[in-house]
Formats: sequence, structure tokens, C-alpha cells
Amino acid sequence: MPSGSAPTARTRIRRLAERAVYEQAALYAVLDAAYVCHIAFYDGTSCHCIPTACWRDGDYLYVHGSNGGRLVRQLTGDNEVSVAITLMDGLVLAKSAFNHSMNYRSAVIYGRFEVVADAQEKRRLLDGFMRHLLPGRELQARPGNDKELAATSVLALRLDEAAVKIRDGGPEDDAEDMDLPVWAGVLPMQLMGQAPLAAPHNTVAAPDYVQTWAGRNVG
Amino acid sequence: MPSGSAPTARTRIRRLAERAVYEQAALYAVLDAAYVCHIAFYDGTSCHCIPTACWRDGDYLYVHGSNGGRLVRQLTGDNEVSVAITLMDGLVLAKSAFNHSMNYRSAVIYGRFEVVADAQEKRRLLDGFMRHLLPGRELQARPGNDKELAATSVLALRLDEAAVKIRDGGPEDDAEDMDLPVWAGVLPMQLMGQAPLAAPHNTVAAPDYVQTWAGRNVG
Repeated sequence: MPSGSAPTARTRIRRLAERAVYEQAALYAVLDAAYVCHIAFYDGTSCHCIPTACWRDGDYLYVHGSNGGRLVRQLTGDNEVSVAITLMDGLVLAKSAFNHSMNYRSAVIYGRFEVVADAQEKRRLLDGFMRHLLPGRELQARPGNDKELAATSVLALRLDEAAVKIRDGGPEDDAEDMDLPVWAGVLPMQLMGQAPLAAPHNTVAAPDYVQTWAGRNVG
Repeated sequence: MPSGSAPTARTRIRRLAERAVYEQAALYAVLDAAYVCHIAFYDGTSCHCIPTACWRDGDYLYVHGSNGGRLVRQLTGDNEVSVAITLMDGLVLAKSAFNHSMNYRSAVIYGRFEVVADAQEKRRLLDGFMRHLLPGRELQARPGNDKELAATSVLALRLDEAAVKIRDGGPEDDAEDMDLPVWAGVLPMQLMGQAPLAAPHNTVAAPDYVQTWAGRNVG
């Protein structure tokens, strides 16, 4: 992480501090596994929480949207944002109700989005977005033309102030509960690809990333 | 939905209005399929986006937390919140990069959390939370004792001002792209249970919801 990324008061996890990991690799891994982030911003009257697709390139998280859309309008108004990404990994079943938990990976980033103005850089980043979803797809889909590119905003959030929080492993039961006749352990969960559905107008053979989609871990 | 739940300016989806569904059943279905929500709130200085477990009971969404925790402290300060829930259903592959999309179900709720003060109601709701995760588990785990219950806050958000947005179905390609030799269709995804991991201190047989977990759709 850049030198300015030391934990601030906001990103220092106050509770369960042992779960906080401030390392760049962990942050990148969470962002790179995600399809969507949730963006919180305050418009002067209300707070909003908006889900949108995201991807990482270097030390930035990127989102994109239609120029005229509310998301782009709000995020380019110099509003400070808080962006959260959460990946569910499992249910943690303890012997007591109180000690139940969940396994997850999450990241929170604070900052301000900047507009990517350069058309060539926008193209490069949007190709990267497609590669993030399906490596190779960016070489096959018809690229955006000038009109489409002009209608799309790409917004960049520098990963300067970010925290990662991960919970994994089994339940932690209290000593007095250890012998209760209750099943204890973890029920893992995983986002998995399901059988692809070709569109009615599709006439071409499925490429590799489509053929191997079903049954693959995809998040 | 209660009579006060007509779309407000904030919950009226401005773009892609055809994807907005204002019906109670759709809202409940999204909330009931979710493990976590993202809560956005403004503390007077910064906006925050916090992921936390949630569940629905009647016309309320509930979250819980430790009394001394930051989440509970912030949400009981009469802060207005925006709560978002997003479930990813698939990647939508069009012939042009520009027309790619994602299938998802999402909900956004605006309001203020109220503390559930009554101890008996708290017990009932926390049982409901466990039932939401794994029906039957609430009858097996050792229930919270008075001390544990007193250390836990349950917060209720009335589903008065809420919007659901769903995208499903295949890609919508432009007429001039229809014949491009590019695969078009949907790559569905699903959160699925994986093989359970018993804790080292577990000595009891796996109950039904553990035995049937692996390979099941769980979100």
C-alpha cells in the first residue's frame, strides 16, 4: 500500500482488532474477488448506499456508469465516499447461540472518486474491467466505439485509506459450553458458476471461459 | 408494504426504471435470501458503509451487535441510514462490450433504526435470526443467557421506504451487432454450500441442515 495508507482513526478496526489485516496483498485479494462494491455517500441531505460493479487496477478501485446517471453525478461532486466490499465465506456454528458467527472477507475504503478524463486510459481500464470478469473476453467482444466511450464515465478511487477485515476458522466456544451435545463447526459457502444460457441470437460456439464456467468457483 | 411505502424521490429508480419493482413480495424475497446488508450513515463528519448480518421479521429488517460496538453506537444516535442488499445472479455477455451487464437482485431501504428494548422480544427476534440462517438450529444451540442478551442490541428498521431492483434475462444487443461472431448469453452464478467442517471439539452427529448443506443453494 502507498506510504499514506497507515490506518487512520476511521480504518482502525475498533473491535475484534485481531481480525484486521492492513496488508496490501490482502486488500487486493478481496477487491479482485469481488463483482460489486457498495458506495456510501452523503448528498447534503441524505446518506445513500449504492451497489455497483467494480474492479481494481494498481492502487485504484474503479467503477463506471452512464454520464447522465445518478451515480456518476453524485460521485463526481467531490463527495467523500466510503466503499465496502464483502464476500461471504461461511456460517460458523458454535454450541451457544451467542458464539455463532460468520466467515467473511471484507474491505472498506475512504476517499473521493476522480473522473478518468483521458479516452485512451478509459479504454484500457474498461478492457481491464472485462478481463477482471472473464479473462479473454476483452479480446472478443466488439470494443466500445467513440460514442459509447463518450457516454461512459470511469471513476477512480485511490486505495490510500483502506482496511481489510477477515474472519475465518471455526467457532470459539466458552469453556462451560464445550460438552453440550450441539454440533459445532463451519458451513462453508462459495459463489459458483452454473450452466451457461446461450442467447436466442447466439450462433457461435462457446469459448473456453463459457465452457468451463459451470461448477467453477467464481467469487 | 405498508401504506406509507409509496416510492419517494429517493427510492424511485431514475434510470432503468423498468427494473424497479415496488412490490412487497419482491422486497421480502430479496431480504430473506440475504446474509448481509451494507449500512450507510453519516456521522456528521464522514459517511460510513458497514456490512453486517441482517434478517427480516414482518415489516422490519433487523441487525444486531455488541452494545459497546461502534455499529450499535452509531446507529442508535438517530442517524438516518440507507441500507443496501445485493445478490449477484450472473454475468450477461452481449456481443458488444458496451451492452454487457450483470443479473442481480437488490434492495435499498431508507429510515432510522430503533432499539428493541423488550427482552422477550429480543429473544424471539434472535431466535428468528438463527432460524433465518438454518431452520431448526434455534432449537438446538444453547440459548443466550441473561448476561449475553443484555450485552446484545437488536435494532429494527421499518420497511417503509424501500425499493427493489432486479435485472434478469439475457443480453440486449444492438441491431447492428446481432451478427457479430461473439458468444452471447448469460453465465449464472449461485452461492452454494460446501462440505461442512466439524470443529475439533465437536462430538455429536451432524444434524439434517449440516448433512444437506454441501451442494445446496444457500443464497
